Amino acid sequence: MTSPLDALQSRLGHRFADADLLTAALTHRSVGTQNNERLEFLGDSLLNCIIAAELFHLRPNLPEGDLSRLRATLVRGTTLAQVAGELELSALLIMGPGELRSGGFQRESIQADAVEAVLGAVFLDAGFDACRKAVLQLFADRLGDLPEVASLKDPKTRLQEWLQRRGQPLPVYELVSSAGKSHDRTFTVCCTVASFDVVEEALGGSRKKAEQSAAQAVLEALESTSGEPRT
Amino acid sequence: MTSPLDALQSRLGHRFADADLLTAALTHRSVGTQNNERLEFLGDSLLNCIIAAELFHLRPNLPEGDLSRLRATLVRGTTLAQVAGELELSALLIMGPGELRSGGFQRESIQADAVEAVLGAVFLDAGFDACRKAVLQLFADRLGDLPEVASLKDPKTRLQEWLQRRGQPLPVYELVSSAGKSHDRTFTVCCTVASFDVVEEALGGSRKKAEQSAAQAVLEALESTSGEPRT
Repeated sequence: MTSPLDALQSRLGHRFADADLLTAALTHRSVGTQNNERLEFLGDSLLNCIIAAELFHLRPNLPEGDLSRLRATLVRGTTLAQVAGELELSALLIMGPGELRSGGFQRESIQADAVEAVLGAVFLDAGFDACRKAVLQLFADRLGDLPEVASLKDPKTRLQEWLQRRGQPLPVYELVSSAGKSHDRTFTVCCTVASFDVVEEALGGSRKKAEQSAAQAVLEALESTSGEPRT
Repeated sequence: MTSPLDALQSRLGHRFADADLLTAALTHRSVGTQNNERLEFLGDSLLNCIIAAELFHLRPNLPEGDLSRLRATLVRGTTLAQVAGELELSALLIMGPGELRSGGFQRESIQADAVEAVLGAVFLDAGFDACRKAVLQLFADRLGDLPEVASLKDPKTRLQEWLQRRGQPLPVYELVSSAGKSHDRTFTVCCTVASFDVVEEALGGSRKKAEQSAAQAVLEALESTSGEPRT
């Protein structure tokens, strides 16, 4: 019969010479000062670097900004929590009684941190190449099916590029109003694309967020009409 | 006679098998679409990871937050520009005529980016261990003389810890006023440490910056009197 830790090492594609490293990687800070936070710091940087190198090779013509956006989708908390699920990590997390009672082992951030810590532990146990092998195994499907770069850009950037491709002037953003106290403000922003006669307003918790929402609304309006510029 | 590129490779401790990689790493985006930005993306992540691993070993008892602060001082633009100076990189940068004319080769950010790109190129040329060796050689003095962690914390954190060590309540920050238009505002914040009878006001371009400045002023007041709490 295989133990749960054996099964984890199989799924990870790495068998630890020093099993204490794996235990440390699974130990949440709620247990005490001996926990996985230092390993998480290390694993985070390794994951970033290994995914960067892989994307660099997989997408030889992609500019740096697009590589960076692609990487962000692969290393963000939601994705790492999915990886934790595939590794069936949550049942193996070692937590203090408080966190256990409040269901901390189900928290996305705790699972994501543990994945990074496990990768840090693989690096300490067997070096960069072993860590790289584990990352490529865990991310094989995602690296084989990368999202379209265009879909990753924020609405303001997409709107700007949409207009530039058509030789049209840039949109104009204006603050219509802001309401509420300084620590809890709501901003209303208006985005105007005069050449297509489109004006949309949107709200947001910051001016920047409101601008992004307004740009998204304008994009949807432009794409639904797919019209020609007003002459 | 050694060429400038030979001298650079000596200072770097790495001789390129593929010299085109080094040329690419020195080519600023002002030259055209074939430039060093992708290599910079790669090198940045390698530098972060190699420094992280080194600090992990050098400071076995430091919590993750402190490791992260230490790393930030080593990989920030100012430090990398110093490294570029030690490598005498600026004379070797390949730039477009516009950037050349405006003295771009002297710009700190361009030099820092080129250092990262060169490290990315070493990785592609010879792998992780060669890149690590170059990083450790370039950062040997800095890694051997790391700053005190306490000095790296921001003033609000330092003030909070100073009060906690003395069992005193946390400081209170209040927004006194804000002036100017929404994109160019000045905030005035007041920081009060009632238990020591200290109140300081400070200005800043954001509420957060004003709070940090006010905390710094309070810290200086507290440390200059090194007094006991008001009872």
